[in-house]
Amino acid sequence: MNVAYVIGLAATVVFSMSGVIAASRRELDVLGVLVFGSITAIGGGTLRDVILGNAVFWIVDFNYVWVAATTAIITFFLYRYVNYTYRMLLYLDAVGVALFCVLAVQSVLAQGYSQPVAVIMGVLTAIGGGVLRDLLVNQPNLLVKPELYATPILLGAILYVVTLNLAPDFTYSWLIAMGFIFLLRAAAIHWKLTMPHFLMIYPTADEETILEL
Amino acid sequence: MNVAYVIGLAATVVFSMSGVIAASRRELDVLGVLVFGSITAIGGGTLRDVILGNAVFWIVDFNYVWVAATTAIITFFLYRYVNYTYRMLLYLDAVGVALFCVLAVQSVLAQGYSQPVAVIMGVLTAIGGGVLRDLLVNQPNLLVKPELYATPILLGAILYVVTLNLAPDFTYSWLIAMGFIFLLRAAAIHWKLTMPHFLMIYPTADEETILEL
Amino acid sequence: MNVAYVIGLAATVVFSMSGVIAASRRELDVLGVLVFGSITAIGGGTLRDVILGNAVFWIVDFNYVWVAATTAIITFFLYRYVNYTYRMLLYLDAVGVALFCVLAVQSVLAQGYSQPVAVIMGVLTAIGGGVLRDLLVNQPNLLVKPELYATPILLGAILYVVTLNLAPDFTYSWLIAMGFIFLLRAAAIHWKLTMPHFLMIYPTADEETILEL
Repeated sequence: MNVAYVIGLAATVVFSMSGVIAASRRELDVLGVLVFGSITAIGGGTLRDVILGNAVFWIVDFNYVWVAATTAIITFFLYRYVNYTYRMLLYLDAVGVALFCVLAVQSVLAQGYSQPVAVIMGVLTAIGGGVLRDLLVNQPNLLVKPELYATPILLGAILYVVTLNLAPDFTYSWLIAMGFIFLLRAAAIHWKLTMPHFLMIYPTADEETILEL
Repeated sequence: MNVAYVIGLAATVVFSMSGVIAASRRELDVLGVLVFGSITAIGGGTLRDVILGNAVFWIVDFNYVWVAATTAIITFFLYRYVNYTYRMLLYLDAVGVALFCVLAVQSVLAQGYSQPVAVIMGVLTAIGGGVLRDLLVNQPNLLVKPELYATPILLGAILYVVTLNLAPDFTYSWLIAMGFIFLLRAAAIHWKLTMPHFLMIYPTADEETILEL
Repeated sequence: MNVAYVIGLAATVVFSMSGVIAASRRELDVLGVLVFGSITAIGGGTLRDVILGNAVFWIVDFNYVWVAATTAIITFFLYRYVNYTYRMLLYLDAVGVALFCVLAVQSVLAQGYSQPVAVIMGVLTAIGGGVLRDLLVNQPNLLVKPELYATPILLGAILYVVTLNLAPDFTYSWLIAMGFIFLLRAAAIHWKLTMPHFLMIYPTADEETILEL
């Protein structure tokens, strides 16, 4: 029962909750909710494993699915006592991406992949589940919002790798990277932080043309 | 020429038709329609094989693609004689999910995976093609509708596995599971069956906030 | 440094630009833009490799990611000097699909797959990135538009294979197929070419019913 395993399960819990909250915008039943919670929780890691050609983690260790499914059902039944808000979804997503990103970078490095591949897999594992969640629930994903989203995750993954390079003996670099991602993302949610203007792009022109069918 | 193979092709036919019908909500040509029909028909099984790390079934046996493509073209040309409705799409989808789900559980069990993994792969194979279809056609997928959708499929997969456990010598358990899924799903479509209120979740709050870009 | 490699990188460049242009309909920052550009550029080939069970090309050769990411950032900074239009996205996409389609058919054939599988993989590689781009940016993908899109790509892939069969010694069949795809697609964009009426399907009936949630 190592620390990474517990953190992985914790990330599974919060992502499953975020999937249920996202799905609760629709009129759904408990099983639909279970499906959304589970896909959100295990989607990112599944994409990572499939792209790396690894055995998919939840087929190897089915506990992840049990945890995701159980969490989804509990979150469903808490629904009448708690008023879920979009803001809660955002914060849970922030916890999930912080945990999953660093864990994934760690495990991909341990498999002998290069650091750039590990960074990308960290980002993919972190955002994959949430992007799938938003696609399936038919809501715009967090990547197309102006607030900082990809940035904290990518910077956190790079920070982790750089810390490993500079101080390979320091055992808490993963904790620092997770904290960094969560705090920067939470700040982005709270203060609606965006990048400075010269690093932003603003829609102009023919939005109409594109969004029409 | 065994029974499972014929059923697999039949499911391919009905899913391809459902893809064409879904696509016919758009102004499309025969090749676009062929692409949608084929993706709907082979999408779920492709997801299953990719996640299990198996060779993808339609690369091993290209007949599935020929059947899906031919069906799509025939369905296209029947378009001027038949008034396709969304209801037809729903019933075809119901046939497809019933056939694909049980077939997939069967074949995944035969490969030596555990029963929970087989159940999940059954559900994934069954709903994967339809979800892809709805994503690509830009219509809300059937998982975000209130009517019973995931439930009949999941229950049917579990029913099949339980029957196998209780009566391993009974040779028609697959037929019973398929019938169960189709009938429950058809009832859900016909009477707009949903779960009882205490197992439903209803959108409240800040729908607006989420759906805005 | 062979020709196919250079063409592959060129296709990566144009697809990355198309991803940035698509994303520029949203209020986004430079890193969001980088993510969209990269996913558009490497998405189609990733789908192909995952379905074939091959090692994913950009994990084997990370240059593709560097090129996609660098292109995305340059395209981002050109944003204030160039007025990106949806039309530019369409033409860039046309160049990308022409290059990627023929390259993919070629490499899949070289791996010993049958010609029909190679044709499908060519189409998938060509349209996969763009479809992912449109899904993630929340805009209708090019497959659900009436103008010729799947047709030039599929015909080009078939033309290439047929030329190989008829004139195996002719070394420029790939160039002809690429030219064919691009020119037909460009004509479709410029003159809003569609198939003749009897090969088109027009939305009727219950659009409302389907698009409502």
